[in-house]
Amino acid sequence: MDVTSSASRDVTVITQVGASREQRRDAVAVESPLEVRVNGERFAVIMRTPGRDRHLALGFLHSESVITARADVSSVDEWPGDPVLGNRLNVVLGGAAAETLDRHTSERRHVTMTSACGLCGRMSIESLARDATPVPLTWTMSASRVARLPADLRAAQPVFEGTGGLHAAGLVKYDGSVIASAEDVGRHNAVDKIVGAMLDAEGLPLNDSVLAVSGRASFELVQKACLAGIPMLVAISAPSSLAIQCAEVCGITLVGFARGDRFNIYSHPGRIR
Amino acid sequence: MDVTSSASRDVTVITQVGASREQRRDAVAVESPLEVRVNGERFAVIMRTPGRDRHLALGFLHSESVITARADVSSVDEWPGDPVLGNRLNVVLGGAAAETLDRHTSERRHVTMTSACGLCGRMSIESLARDATPVPLTWTMSASRVARLPADLRAAQPVFEGTGGLHAAGLVKYDGSVIASAEDVGRHNAVDKIVGAMLDAEGLPLNDSVLAVSGRASFELVQKACLAGIPMLVAISAPSSLAIQCAEVCGITLVGFARGDRFNIYSHPGRIR
Repeated sequence: MDVTSSASRDVTVITQVGASREQRRDAVAVESPLEVRVNGERFAVIMRTPGRDRHLALGFLHSESVITARADVSSVDEWPGDPVLGNRLNVVLGGAAAETLDRHTSERRHVTMTSACGLCGRMSIESLARDATPVPLTWTMSASRVARLPADLRAAQPVFEGTGGLHAAGLVKYDGSVIASAEDVGRHNAVDKIVGAMLDAEGLPLNDSVLAVSGRASFELVQKACLAGIPMLVAISAPSSLAIQCAEVCGITLVGFARGDRFNIYSHPGRIR
Repeated sequence: MDVTSSASRDVTVITQVGASREQRRDAVAVESPLEVRVNGERFAVIMRTPGRDRHLALGFLHSESVITARADVSSVDEWPGDPVLGNRLNVVLGGAAAETLDRHTSERRHVTMTSACGLCGRMSIESLARDATPVPLTWTMSASRVARLPADLRAAQPVFEGTGGLHAAGLVKYDGSVIASAEDVGRHNAVDKIVGAMLDAEGLPLNDSVLAVSGRASFELVQKACLAGIPMLVAISAPSSLAIQCAEVCGITLVGFARGDRFNIYSHPGRIR
């Protein structure tokens, strides 16, 4: 992965064990802002781990339904940096996507998304169920292969090993081959980096793939999987109630608590044999 | 805590262990949208665990710098619900805060906060350092008391015990007494619920308290602590680079990896003796 160089940074830390203190150098995960501009206008500021910013920007705009395919993007270029905000990317849209944007930005003015919120004004489970075509059951994966997904994810986390501070996402084809992986301080960003890379390679929708994520499964992660056409989401930790509801509606197989040879299936179990 | 009744829900789950499957009922953490309106206008939709919504709304508006004290709020009332979006609260502001809001909303139109983003357009480390008065060092806490904070946090997580799906935040006074705690699918929400409760009781700033959080320390959590005047933040897991930078600038003692009798101090170690 190309992120390793700037994804962690050494800091001075005091480690206290009982009554004794030791000062040492330790690696921490880098978190810094990326400003995403669309057609020159500021669209969002994303707190992310540097690296694969182009993919992050494309995946983010895809999950915001601003773009749906590579053809919607005419260029992605660096924009002169801001001493406070740091890195900036400008995404120039093609014809049809540019028109959609106008409608989109006027809608998003009515509501602010928060750190805890994957649901912006225009998006709800109902509209997701209406807009997203549930993926038919065309393949299955063995339970033993599902159980090995957490190990695939750990293997794709070189920076986590050093810092303990990054989330990971991995994309695995139904035949078991690992297609892509990404690390970031935010799980959502790690997923956006993967979806953005696949969009950039004209590889959407991802109907033949499983998305594995460290941590928990929120509504927003299921929503991202749904928009990318991914029919199975596997989380290391717990799912939320809304993640389960959303997965049921969108035809997604949702797996949680994937640990050792054990996992829980919360929806559409037919894809696991 | 009053959240227990609606904070978890039983679902049917298939547990796969090796080649065998078992269907059973299990509790999952509830995640559902809360729409926060300000003076009748939609301001934000927060994905949260139901319960203490009033405190969540107040704490959220405080962390957005829309309100700074109880006197800025003239009422908080339910707003007729939306069948899709669910619960709604309307916060009616007092005079000075209402004027600030106009400026605030026109500024926030220029940028959208994302799930990964605690940095909205108007906010940066520099402005935080300018606006927030660093809390002077007026008290210390023993290392052994700091090491017991994770246990306090677990004791304040009744729903996590059942679901594994909730984050927690706890507020502890420098003399070691537990002041408040909250659970939520989002750590940020848990902190907002605490800060909102203290604001509601006219108890801000929280200069004599330590904030403990499950999971990692992001920039946004340090920012929330700073705005509430909390001089020490203790996280169970890793801090990010920007969390450390922000804590340094704002005069906050930042502790990470608090496990057993061991923890790391990343900034302003003088508050721990």
